Amino acid sequence: MFLNSVSHYLPETYIPNSHFIEKLGVSDEWIVKRSGIKTRTKASKFENTNTMGLEAVNTSIPSLPYKIEEIDLIISATYTPYDTIGTLAHFIQGHYNISNAICFSITSACSSFINAAEIVEAFFQNGKASKALIITAEHNSIYNNEDDKQSGYLWGDGAAATFFSKEKYSEKDFEIIDIHSEGLGNIGKGVDGVSLRPNEGGMKMPYGKDVFLHASKYMLKEATEILIKNNLTLNDLNYLIPHQANIRIINNVAENMGLSENQVLLNITEIGNTGCASSVIAFSQNIKKFKSNDKLLFSVFGGGYSSGSMLLKKI
Amino acid sequence: MFLNSVSHYLPETYIPNSHFIEKLGVSDEWIVKRSGIKTRTKASKFENTNTMGLEAVNTSIPSLPYKIEEIDLIISATYTPYDTIGTLAHFIQGHYNISNAICFSITSACSSFINAAEIVEAFFQNGKASKALIITAEHNSIYNNEDDKQSGYLWGDGAAATFFSKEKYSEKDFEIIDIHSEGLGNIGKGVDGVSLRPNEGGMKMPYGKDVFLHASKYMLKEATEILIKNNLTLNDLNYLIPHQANIRIINNVAENMGLSENQVLLNITEIGNTGCASSVIAFSQNIKKFKSNDKLLFSVFGGGYSSGSMLLKKI
Repeated sequence: MFLNSVSHYLPETYIPNSHFIEKLGVSDEWIVKRSGIKTRTKASKFENTNTMGLEAVNTSIPSLPYKIEEIDLIISATYTPYDTIGTLAHFIQGHYNISNAICFSITSACSSFINAAEIVEAFFQNGKASKALIITAEHNSIYNNEDDKQSGYLWGDGAAATFFSKEKYSEKDFEIIDIHSEGLGNIGKGVDGVSLRPNEGGMKMPYGKDVFLHASKYMLKEATEILIKNNLTLNDLNYLIPHQANIRIINNVAENMGLSENQVLLNITEIGNTGCASSVIAFSQNIKKFKSNDKLLFSVFGGGYSSGSMLLKKI
Repeated sequence: MFLNSVSHYLPETYIPNSHFIEKLGVSDEWIVKRSGIKTRTKASKFENTNTMGLEAVNTSIPSLPYKIEEIDLIISATYTPYDTIGTLAHFIQGHYNISNAICFSITSACSSFINAAEIVEAFFQNGKASKALIITAEHNSIYNNEDDKQSGYLWGDGAAATFFSKEKYSEKDFEIIDIHSEGLGNIGKGVDGVSLRPNEGGMKMPYGKDVFLHASKYMLKEATEILIKNNLTLNDLNYLIPHQANIRIINNVAENMGLSENQVLLNITEIGNTGCASSVIAFSQNIKKFKSNDKLLFSVFGGGYSSGSMLLKKI
């Protein structure tokens, strides 16, 4: 399984911490210390997960080594959907008139990208698909309550598109070495740790400490276990691409792994927590940095809870 | 791949057509003629997709031929989620303390059950899972606008749980012969045919005729093609289990297939359109009817659009 292309989209507007100072009665330093966030992206009133996902896909088109119409599996991933019936996956199918594709949207909160990749892997292996598109997109701002001191200042908006093929397509490809995911709804505060109940006020994070502890634990667990399973050591790893929920969680994981600062790809400082798109956006933002034979590791954690990892190698 | 158990849950309250007569300026006969619906289920204010899904799962527990803790893949399917972060799948995992399971929620609108089954099949085939639970649940009433004459009277609430194993478990099992799905976001009105935009007023069906035409066409196509692919004729088929969107669509498909009335399993008259749970609820309601070697065929259509089919045989 090979990753052929990645691209991302971020809205034009960046909201600085100063926006929250009066609203939440906190300081810029308080937000930075707790989260690492200085600004966060915010979609315009004309944007949503479908439009942002489309922008991300569009950016990949010129460099895609095959026609997008050849895609036979489209999975969108979002917990902040614009439309739960006409999903982002179906919207993309319609926009590009992709006439022969299995199509659905998934969520396991901020770990959805890894679950989607694991589904792609399975459909490649049983022959139901050979070229797949995963669109991760989050429109957190529309479900967020900015007056919530616990989590109102955390969220950003954005999208990313990744294209996969069963067979290798070009020397620009990344080879997927392994993918792992785990549902953790039975751990800690589980489904109450973070929630987005559209009919009960949207996004809430009443148990931040529980989320912090389990995200730190399971992102480290995912990262180390997938390396061991594939007979790799930390010395073999070039880059960690973590879910961008909170700089303290990421630093905790990176320190425990003994990684240097330049090995950890970050975007949370500028764009906030962009949900399941966050690690994919970080991957896309750094795409020119990767050299042949570099080994990259996604490690993610989702409220709900879930965790996941994906190990890949630049060809 | 085998289906080991199915069960369902329906709320206590049934709303009669008389509820809509004044509200929509229509008659009981008008509703029945257009949709076949006489009553529809409605969840109480204490219920949601998570609670209804749990009730459905609970009903299967006594007859389940293994412990639910052995499940290693949990997929929930809903376009009317209670929580998009703490999903129904994660809620079930937490409730039963299922400690080793891949977990996520999907939607392709009313065809989600077939997409979920296709994912189960792929994870069984590549060895990532061996026992799976699919929970289909819809809480249409909370996203519905009862004052919408186009579709306000159509929707019901309910849930169903299906358990699958890679290996045969008992003589009560059904063997899954084949599963097929197709995204149709590029057909007809596509994502605009039916929509559920939580931040734009919930569920809408502005293009009922387009939905009718494509649902009739693609449910027939799915049903006939999967039979042909598996070297079966209509004479081999015992029961059709269609998505229950509208009695006229179902009658259209059944007539084109030359099926007799007692071969088509229905619940739309009593419970309305219960979304992706509807066909699974019909399957569960009729479970005592099936005899050894009976062949059953699910054929579904989802707004967005999507279609899917599943062929199974009672052992």
